[in-house]
Amino acid sequence: MTIQHVEYLVIGGGPGGTPTAMALASAGKSVLLVEKGPGLGGTCLFEGCIPSKIFRESARRLRELREAGDFGLCLPTQDVTVNWSDVLARKHAILKRRSEAALQHTHQLPTLESRFGQCRLLGSRSAMIQQEDGSELEIQFDKAILATGSVPIMPPIHGIDHPRVHDSESILNIDPIPEKLVIIGGGPIGVELGQVFNTLGTEVTLLEAAPRILGPVDEELAMHLQQRMQQESIEIRTQCQVESIVHSGQSVFVEYTDQAGAKQHHITDTVLMVTGRRPNVEGLGLDTTAVKHDRHGIQVNDILETTEPGIYAVGDAIGQPMFAHWATAQGLALARHLLGQPIPFPDPATNSAVIFSEPEIGIAGLTEAQAKAAGMDVGVARYNFKQDARAQIAGNDSGILKIVFDKASAKVIGVHALVEGAGELMGEAALLVKAGLPIQAIAGAIHPHPTLNESFVQAVRQTMAKANVHKTGES
Amino acid sequence: MTIQHVEYLVIGGGPGGTPTAMALASAGKSVLLVEKGPGLGGTCLFEGCIPSKIFRESARRLRELREAGDFGLCLPTQDVTVNWSDVLARKHAILKRRSEAALQHTHQLPTLESRFGQCRLLGSRSAMIQQEDGSELEIQFDKAILATGSVPIMPPIHGIDHPRVHDSESILNIDPIPEKLVIIGGGPIGVELGQVFNTLGTEVTLLEAAPRILGPVDEELAMHLQQRMQQESIEIRTQCQVESIVHSGQSVFVEYTDQAGAKQHHITDTVLMVTGRRPNVEGLGLDTTAVKHDRHGIQVNDILETTEPGIYAVGDAIGQPMFAHWATAQGLALARHLLGQPIPFPDPATNSAVIFSEPEIGIAGLTEAQAKAAGMDVGVARYNFKQDARAQIAGNDSGILKIVFDKASAKVIGVHALVEGAGELMGEAALLVKAGLPIQAIAGAIHPHPTLNESFVQAVRQTMAKANVHKTGES
Repeated sequence: MTIQHVEYLVIGGGPGGTPTAMALASAGKSVLLVEKGPGLGGTCLFEGCIPSKIFRESARRLRELREAGDFGLCLPTQDVTVNWSDVLARKHAILKRRSEAALQHTHQLPTLESRFGQCRLLGSRSAMIQQEDGSELEIQFDKAILATGSVPIMPPIHGIDHPRVHDSESILNIDPIPEKLVIIGGGPIGVELGQVFNTLGTEVTLLEAAPRILGPVDEELAMHLQQRMQQESIEIRTQCQVESIVHSGQSVFVEYTDQAGAKQHHITDTVLMVTGRRPNVEGLGLDTTAVKHDRHGIQVNDILETTEPGIYAVGDAIGQPMFAHWATAQGLALARHLLGQPIPFPDPATNSAVIFSEPEIGIAGLTEAQAKAAGMDVGVARYNFKQDARAQIAGNDSGILKIVFDKASAKVIGVHALVEGAGELMGEAALLVKAGLPIQAIAGAIHPHPTLNESFVQAVRQTMAKANVHKTGES
Repeated sequence: MTIQHVEYLVIGGGPGGTPTAMALASAGKSVLLVEKGPGLGGTCLFEGCIPSKIFRESARRLRELREAGDFGLCLPTQDVTVNWSDVLARKHAILKRRSEAALQHTHQLPTLESRFGQCRLLGSRSAMIQQEDGSELEIQFDKAILATGSVPIMPPIHGIDHPRVHDSESILNIDPIPEKLVIIGGGPIGVELGQVFNTLGTEVTLLEAAPRILGPVDEELAMHLQQRMQQESIEIRTQCQVESIVHSGQSVFVEYTDQAGAKQHHITDTVLMVTGRRPNVEGLGLDTTAVKHDRHGIQVNDILETTEPGIYAVGDAIGQPMFAHWATAQGLALARHLLGQPIPFPDPATNSAVIFSEPEIGIAGLTEAQAKAAGMDVGVARYNFKQDARAQIAGNDSGILKIVFDKASAKVIGVHALVEGAGELMGEAALLVKAGLPIQAIAGAIHPHPTLNESFVQAVRQTMAKANVHKTGES
């Protein structure tokens, strides 16, 4: 058996591992990147953000097609059909294109080698790769970075292992489009795919254990979206505990306890279970090392080193928050640390996210509730997109922007937007939160008209005008 | 005749005058806002940005409808027709909604009065309003703000006064959609409306005097768009001098000299003349005051005061740059100055703009060429949207981002993007340029995946990585 030595072993070729490996190799370090999946990209590319957004793009276009008449466009008939196999083929093509491009990028770095196979630690400085061709390769490394991501949580509910019960990964290969779908879990994935399948013609029911969908999201925005989904005929039942899933012929009975404690059931043909994800550490050989982990993930300190010196971990594998861009930010900060060119490690209070609902929800930094819970004295600059030129033109003028700022320093600590296009507003939002700029910095920057990003200026101008009137009244 | 005294007379209820008047009235000043048009909103609302973007929205949706098959959506026939009167009705409804909302806003300020009519200065402290009902009202003011905007330039070409020759305002009421359209002038309006009408089925020819379209825009981006327009079958002829327009029955002959100096002509049915706009000072009575003006506009000093003390001017009336958001920024800075709460007046080097072409062009700050012409030593962080997840998903992965930064300080001095959705990236861009943040600030902010705004981070990371390699090589 071959034994190979590398300076860095990176296990997992997703948005955490790949950029880390590339950053280390760019500095001339010898790096081996091992991925067990079909290509570089991880959950995000193959089973997460990208495929669901490809479905959403077709759904979005279908929705716009149905609105065509409002914009002076006349279709001879409203009889539009969805060729689902074409959507799946498009998804496949984009995934292939992106994973091949990622691999091409790694090839440009002479000291970076990528291998496909299952990697298992054999102790604190060695690992074994079970390669795709069946051969084994032993690796001796100076340092290792664990970036193995996460897998869907499948709670121990009776009937959950039936093929008509999907997780967030298998649903992305479903064919044909289900007639009925019960989604268990009102987090980002449940909301996004619920709206997608609803638009595609599926009768969608969403069961959520909490009193509302999208728990960590600003309550006003989440409730706004929840009402919108209900107006779109998505049935949403909150405070539900799913007890069991019973299969009978073509039907699936989802049995649950409702908010009053009464037993209920819902008949469907397909179930999507999206109650969360857990760090993926199975088969990784952590028991051969001093690396500690629990259900929240691999334990790391503030430089992302595990309890085994020389072994580090990034991304979903170390727990919340689980986002591709967060894993990348961690990995790049770790690489800089390891290269002796340290930059600050990312701070969850300055993270950003987009929920690709209709309309989108954009999040950067803390919500008003989170800031208050942290003992901060905050103000909120608000804007209603009902008055917005760009939103009116686009035919999507339902939405809210909230800029949360520290009252004493006027520094922006959070930006939360619900509006179609909110995702693209989060670049500015993330910059504001991270750079700790005051709201006056927004007002001073000349935002172009007519765009949605003008909303930042409008919100702040209104708040500053009120503050001025207030000051005048006091003086 | 009634004589009325106010502290501030604001002439022109567009994006320059209205916010200025409201800011002054919010502080308790007595303000009279006079608008000669049908409602508050100015050229931007009634004859500029907004109507053209409403047309563009219908064109954009028609384009997406034609692409439906690429996204797995099957229309029974490709036979989509445009009900142009519905588009015009939608335009009318949005304009009405917005001008009424603006008027409502002014009504909430007790010391602000709005009047409709033609306003003419009678000297340095008085003016006459010819009201809509025919009555006259004399105004005595302490200070006046001229915000009269601009009007289209119609060059002295033979045949230009024919009803089939439109300017940028009359084209917005054209009915039906022309079969053929010759556009004279390849600036933002010509490009935007050229693509809109081309998508709606018009055979479009664009004649431009310069060697390329969109003169002040980054050359690489402009050439990219020019090629895209040509691929869409828009005929573009550069270095053309239009000599005359000859009408004969239903046909219009546009006679011009081509780049080789040869006489050419083009047969069409409709002409759009969009060679620029000039400050609107006609009928304003400037000759009764010491206010000086020339073809570039009303002369002002660095606090926007004209050569007549106590009379100020903002927006298109004082010349380039002519943008709604620029006029608003000037007006608000002027109001703050007049209220004794000064903020810096806006600097053209930190302005932003969007050209609503397909794909959009977003501009903030200086181009590489402008920076070099100003003697700056700049670097450019680039990104090609061909590799971009969000752009691939949306089916619009043709585009370029260029972040121009000062090499010594790493401060961002310009951001230029060509990509569908570029407009929404200009919030972050404007903030970067105005706040003078270094490129490292972009890399440090966690931009969400998958969005177009990640391009900022990608561009900067690549540049910083190269710089690091370079440093390592040198040391």
